Amino acid sequence: MPLFTVFHKESNTNARTAKLITPHGEINTPIFMPVGTQATVKSMTSEELKEVGSEIILSNTYHLYLRPGSKLISRAGGLHNFMHWDKPILTDSGGFQVFSLSELNKITDEGVIFQSHLDGSRHFISPEISMEIQMELGADIIMAFDECTPYPAEHEYVNESLERTISWARRSKKAMTNTDQTLFGIIQGGVYKDLRLKSVEELLKIDFPGYAIGGLSVGEEKELMLEVLDYTVPVLPEGKPRYLMGVGAPEDLVEGVMRGIDMFDCVLPTRIARHGVVFTHQGRITIRNAEFAEDFGPLDPECNCYVCKNYTRGYIRHLIKRREILGVRLTTYHNLFYLLDLMKRIREAIQKDKFLEFRKEFYS
Amino acid sequence: MPLFTVFHKESNTNARTAKLITPHGEINTPIFMPVGTQATVKSMTSEELKEVGSEIILSNTYHLYLRPGSKLISRAGGLHNFMHWDKPILTDSGGFQVFSLSELNKITDEGVIFQSHLDGSRHFISPEISMEIQMELGADIIMAFDECTPYPAEHEYVNESLERTISWARRSKKAMTNTDQTLFGIIQGGVYKDLRLKSVEELLKIDFPGYAIGGLSVGEEKELMLEVLDYTVPVLPEGKPRYLMGVGAPEDLVEGVMRGIDMFDCVLPTRIARHGVVFTHQGRITIRNAEFAEDFGPLDPECNCYVCKNYTRGYIRHLIKRREILGVRLTTYHNLFYLLDLMKRIREAIQKDKFLEFRKEFYS
Repeated sequence: MPLFTVFHKESNTNARTAKLITPHGEINTPIFMPVGTQATVKSMTSEELKEVGSEIILSNTYHLYLRPGSKLISRAGGLHNFMHWDKPILTDSGGFQVFSLSELNKITDEGVIFQSHLDGSRHFISPEISMEIQMELGADIIMAFDECTPYPAEHEYVNESLERTISWARRSKKAMTNTDQTLFGIIQGGVYKDLRLKSVEELLKIDFPGYAIGGLSVGEEKELMLEVLDYTVPVLPEGKPRYLMGVGAPEDLVEGVMRGIDMFDCVLPTRIARHGVVFTHQGRITIRNAEFAEDFGPLDPECNCYVCKNYTRGYIRHLIKRREILGVRLTTYHNLFYLLDLMKRIREAIQKDKFLEFRKEFYS
Repeated sequence: MPLFTVFHKESNTNARTAKLITPHGEINTPIFMPVGTQATVKSMTSEELKEVGSEIILSNTYHLYLRPGSKLISRAGGLHNFMHWDKPILTDSGGFQVFSLSELNKITDEGVIFQSHLDGSRHFISPEISMEIQMELGADIIMAFDECTPYPAEHEYVNESLERTISWARRSKKAMTNTDQTLFGIIQGGVYKDLRLKSVEELLKIDFPGYAIGGLSVGEEKELMLEVLDYTVPVLPEGKPRYLMGVGAPEDLVEGVMRGIDMFDCVLPTRIARHGVVFTHQGRITIRNAEFAEDFGPLDPECNCYVCKNYTRGYIRHLIKRREILGVRLTTYHNLFYLLDLMKRIREAIQKDKFLEFRKEFYS
């Protein structure tokens, strides 16, 4: 059975629907993956994740390696068993967090020495160690160890970093020996076209069953991100999944899909939910605001989720203002439902060759 | 239809089963009422409260009066509508919190002047104002405004305080004009038998449809609390519900029921849950402890709740240690299930005249 089957590509766009098969079930793409950093999508049970339409979730190697430890999770029967989630999981490589969260990291061609953000303890991670950890965690899709190049950065540094990432991709592939896990390569190269194209060229030589585009949505202008997609996606093979890492604003999902992206992940919907910000069909609203104190309508009048059917803006505002856990639960649930429902509507539109219409309506 | 019907009283004990009827449904007693201080039982949805067996919840007048305000809740259609809970609710009078939480409170015969623990703003509450607030909230059962006498306290002060509480009870009854709400009187008198008996005598003259025993579990020895019950409950009318306020440890529920108590409330199960302490059939365990890190069994092997069927001690320990919301959700859910299941088993035992046997087994 092929890992990835494209169902339909809409003419005049690169938007496509497809199916990705994993040991824990099929994923319909384009898909958004909620992020469960510490083996939990903050505030949500597995049953609720399914209710809102999650087909796959992401978890973070860096965090799980530090706490509770990947060996402990392995002894619990792997991440699926440990966290009571029987659908597909994708783990990142730890690279992004090593560079963004840890203290005093030192990069060599061999790997990265870093200090834990939790207790300052020293650790070393390399492509081989990242693979070992990700094999212990046992996610369905795992990621090559890479350096997520910061933005802005000079062409020279990005090139140097990319060379390392390419060599690490080769070593990752060699070190990943589990046959029931799928390893994706990660395209880096910052916002430099020549480097992105070089990255693709070299990764295609190594040959991965799927390709991620990393290093975007890290501070660059939105136009610049879309430009990178415009020249990077077309050189990727049609028959393999494309995953845009760390991107999850509704408009970015629409633009990414139009450019041929199949998978997305981002902490945005769950993070803004914890600050009382929710997506609606009319744009984002900050539910903490005084204007909602006596608004006894739903968060989003056009939404059919459990929260919008049962709770009011005024009540949720009260909960968020009082720092009540239920408030965060309700905003998180709604935001994930909104994004996953958006992806479902996008898939349906593509299937009917109506994605461009859908996009027009989305912006109106 | 009578408010309260006793089904069965077990011989040789004062334990009894009964039914209490409210505008939002029937309650089977003896019952434990989860506490939803700020119009939410911390971390739980209404559906989950029903899943764990809640037939009635308690909410706090003091907190709701301050935030979001009882008038706002009234405009939302009352507390049931506001918080999406369609079963019975009991509100306390605000008295306990005014004395225990607020700053700089000043008691006169008229009422209490206090400063909000949130912003220091000054407020005045009296029996009449407490009734007004509770009528705005619209709970099924509401409580007379009382002074919860501190422990320890001299006989002279407790007597003086009791005189005030009796006069406040009379004023509460006069001020409560809603016909679809039921007002309970509160027995005070500290740990002095003569004062407790005087309190009952005076409240019976005023005549309430139900009686609460307040001012216990406030620091006194457990033996002393049971002693108060031993001489207070027998002078209460058989045909009216008896509510022991602020008591919720499993062993206290068993002892209270044996002495003829019908209703209990306490923050204990939800509060200890947030600190990672859970009830089990073998006693309490602190799930944060290192010994549970690789324990991949359920919280309580004898429990059939959703949490015990799906999650492990090791995973819940990880969540609690990492301050993940899901951890608190799971421990809270389990603790409430445990207590409500305990009450169900108690009711079944009484119904079969086997409560004394049940109690013996409970302690073994």
